[in-house]
Amino acid sequence: MRTTTSAIRVACAQTDPVLGDIAASTAASVDAIRTAADAGADVVVLPECASSGWAFADEAEARPAAQGLDGETIRAWHAEARERDLWVCGGFAELGDDGRIYNSSALVSPDGVESVYRKVHLWNTEHDAFTPGDRGFPVVETPFGRVGMLICYDAWIPESFRSLGLQGADLVLAPSDWVPNPRQPEHLPPSAHIVTMAGAQANQCYVASASRVGTERGTTFIGASIIVDPFGWPLTRPGTDGVDLIWADIDPLGTRESRLADPFNRPLGDRRADAYATGMEDARR
Amino acid sequence: MRTTTSAIRVACAQTDPVLGDIAASTAASVDAIRTAADAGADVVVLPECASSGWAFADEAEARPAAQGLDGETIRAWHAEARERDLWVCGGFAELGDDGRIYNSSALVSPDGVESVYRKVHLWNTEHDAFTPGDRGFPVVETPFGRVGMLICYDAWIPESFRSLGLQGADLVLAPSDWVPNPRQPEHLPPSAHIVTMAGAQANQCYVASASRVGTERGTTFIGASIIVDPFGWPLTRPGTDGVDLIWADIDPLGTRESRLADPFNRPLGDRRADAYATGMEDARR
Repeated sequence: MRTTTSAIRVACAQTDPVLGDIAASTAASVDAIRTAADAGADVVVLPECASSGWAFADEAEARPAAQGLDGETIRAWHAEARERDLWVCGGFAELGDDGRIYNSSALVSPDGVESVYRKVHLWNTEHDAFTPGDRGFPVVETPFGRVGMLICYDAWIPESFRSLGLQGADLVLAPSDWVPNPRQPEHLPPSAHIVTMAGAQANQCYVASASRVGTERGTTFIGASIIVDPFGWPLTRPGTDGVDLIWADIDPLGTRESRLADPFNRPLGDRRADAYATGMEDARR
Repeated sequence: MRTTTSAIRVACAQTDPVLGDIAASTAASVDAIRTAADAGADVVVLPECASSGWAFADEAEARPAAQGLDGETIRAWHAEARERDLWVCGGFAELGDDGRIYNSSALVSPDGVESVYRKVHLWNTEHDAFTPGDRGFPVVETPFGRVGMLICYDAWIPESFRSLGLQGADLVLAPSDWVPNPRQPEHLPPSAHIVTMAGAQANQCYVASASRVGTERGTTFIGASIIVDPFGWPLTRPGTDGVDLIWADIDPLGTRESRLADPFNRPLGDRRADAYATGMEDARR
């Protein structure tokens, strides 16, 4: 890291991947990482499926665009991480060791892959192309605090953020491909911002969500990436609806104690597990 | 009910209770119920502690302002419900059979008390005056669907809404005493709206939150009551910061099937209980 404290500059980079084209999509992500590095970023978040595009019709179409952790995209991200001394979190179509295709994200440091997350909550027609994630919501220790990931629609299911919060996540990175909400009133933020702000506040952690732009098969993505503080408020302007970069300076590790102790806002510590309805149990993985 | 369908007009009435004064606070609530009835309301939601005010210094001060279900306030609400053929949901300082003081809400029909909820998540200094709720989040069947309640700060803890959603709540009524968030950016909705919109969407139910106005011991309440649809969007303007009434026409029961089946927004049905972190379990009450 560039700093001698645990403070970091986290950036969300909006790219426009090319459906089914690993080389072009990866090149766009590398450009974005370099732009973020030039802006002083210590951590760069890329969109969901930044390696490949997203709107696959079915698994057969997704398969040639899927890669393992030794694939071209992760290798390129690792090379940039090492070269520019930063961390990259990005979404990619993953070919698992089991031969299945997952909608995944990787956290890559200068040392290599630190964590992989497989999207737990597939949205709508994603079930046609991907297998639901089978490894829960991992949280890993980093020099800047505990980091977890979720992907796009996961943010709409509060258990995603909560699973990370209960594991002590200081920072949630959320590669996303946000789409328009047909019912959204003009005077209110996008639904994606509502659920992201609520998730950050409920778990008293920072959240950086990078959303893609462009159009695939009639779906136009909204961009509008945001970085949210542990009280649920954005730290910077949202991303535009084009290729863009936003960033904020945060200290997820250094603020841990003060964040969790605030009596005005302590929804993580104030949980009452004894009082909740059945069905919120887990598999105690 | 006035209608031959399950559709209802739900209203949120903002009142300004008088701390420690049951008679004055109850009279204000009765005025509000009558105004709502004149506006055609079938269900009227009143604020948290509408019976008594809220900012009690300690339990000794709260005790004389607390009542049982046979107290003056609930009797007044029942009389109005019977007289005007409507349902009332309001917050009151409850003296329990166990001698403890709870921050509670009652759902009262023309037939009498249908449900009582005791606030599970006490906020900040509320612990000095009240005992935390010990009965989970009840949901009851009504002619207009399954109805559950939560109170103010409960809305910041996603498990509150989720406990109701998992029990099939079609409509959540939320008596509240919302206070300003010192960090709120001017261009965004209040934190109370963010968490309410997120809760409605995550549980695909209607939510009607009535917040009080006025000032107690230096705390000025914000009003800003809202009624939110199952996609997380407000159905009407928010309440002002004064005595006010808002309402919306909804059909919680009649829309149940279509609400729960929407592939674009199905965060309740898309839950993955097998994938969540430990600590989200319940007491299997």
